[in-house]
Amino acid sequence: MGTETRVFAARADKPAITDKRLLKGARARETVLRRAVDIASLDGLDDVSFGRLATDTGMSKAGIQTLFRAKEVLQLATIDYAREMFIDAVVRPARTAPPGAERLRSLVEHWIEYARTPLFEGGCFRVANTARFDSKPGPIRDALFRNQQEWTDAIGRELRTAVAAGEIAELDIDLAVFQIDSALCAANTALRLGDEDVVEKVRRIVRNLLVEP
Amino acid sequence: MGTETRVFAARADKPAITDKRLLKGARARETVLRRAVDIASLDGLDDVSFGRLATDTGMSKAGIQTLFRAKEVLQLATIDYAREMFIDAVVRPARTAPPGAERLRSLVEHWIEYARTPLFEGGCFRVANTARFDSKPGPIRDALFRNQQEWTDAIGRELRTAVAAGEIAELDIDLAVFQIDSALCAANTALRLGDEDVVEKVRRIVRNLLVEP
Repeated sequence: MGTETRVFAARADKPAITDKRLLKGARARETVLRRAVDIASLDGLDDVSFGRLATDTGMSKAGIQTLFRAKEVLQLATIDYAREMFIDAVVRPARTAPPGAERLRSLVEHWIEYARTPLFEGGCFRVANTARFDSKPGPIRDALFRNQQEWTDAIGRELRTAVAAGEIAELDIDLAVFQIDSALCAANTALRLGDEDVVEKVRRIVRNLLVEP
Repeated sequence: MGTETRVFAARADKPAITDKRLLKGARARETVLRRAVDIASLDGLDDVSFGRLATDTGMSKAGIQTLFRAKEVLQLATIDYAREMFIDAVVRPARTAPPGAERLRSLVEHWIEYARTPLFEGGCFRVANTARFDSKPGPIRDALFRNQQEWTDAIGRELRTAVAAGEIAELDIDLAVFQIDSALCAANTALRLGDEDVVEKVRRIVRNLLVEP
């Protein structure tokens, strides 16, 4: 379980909040960020601004500014919040499956459910924003890319475990990770456009990669 | 060549422009649209506005409004213009290759070159905007989806030709089209982030699909 603490582990310990004023602040933060991830998945992180969030949540713009100080701080907090939601919806439930092929299939199934439901108004948060920020160097692109890396690392780890345990035949891990992640990203878009057939395509791509040795 | 007239054919005949005033209008249109596709690939079609284009091109806002009347007309013209540029860069050069496996490989190679150069400031126009508009029904989403369909139809047609001619083994055409297009879209993002290794991954995915019968 050594690797598990590195990938998709919490980035910082969150101390329990006891002070009432702090608790109120934490709740306001939560309200703002929950709305911010929907805006970001639908209209992009650029639209995550103090003014838009004040309008959408009914909170005061000054109050939101006090909580987050600068637009970029707010945007980075939104990315972190979306990451936590993604972990709760996709990564954590898959941990009940044994590592290797079974956990990989579980990750994919939970991802499909996540893109289909969808958890965010505009579908996958990462897909929606990576296309927007991939040509714009800076802390936002770095944070999105770090999350992307964390996700592909998780897929790669399960594939490696499956090969090492003799569950599946040897394969080029990097290529397989790229194929699975590409298919999931494309499926997210297809699902937004109402194409449900894409789900079976994704499952077949994964089945074709996970062949018995 | 019967199918060729349907896929990636010009949508309307363009009459030759002789009148001087009309010629000037056509040139202004060209200047505006060339800038508009860059804005759209970098910041998204939402940012394609009369004001932004006036600032960027030095033309008057009123003049641009006269040419395009409404923002949505301008946005749809931008999509059409990007489509023409894509055809010139990727589809037309591949037509020198014989239909089937060879033309498919040529389409992929020209696509890689197109994403790598890149033709548009923010990389692939379609990838950048499909993620932005996939949750927003309307004429813009329809136009983007039509272009997406036209592109995947072109890939499918070459695969079908290759199978029929016995150049490659039977395969699930829809699944293969999805795999190739997903890989190209993901490669566009990876190239924006400086990951050149992705090019070899795309080539291997295509090679693995185009196996001898």
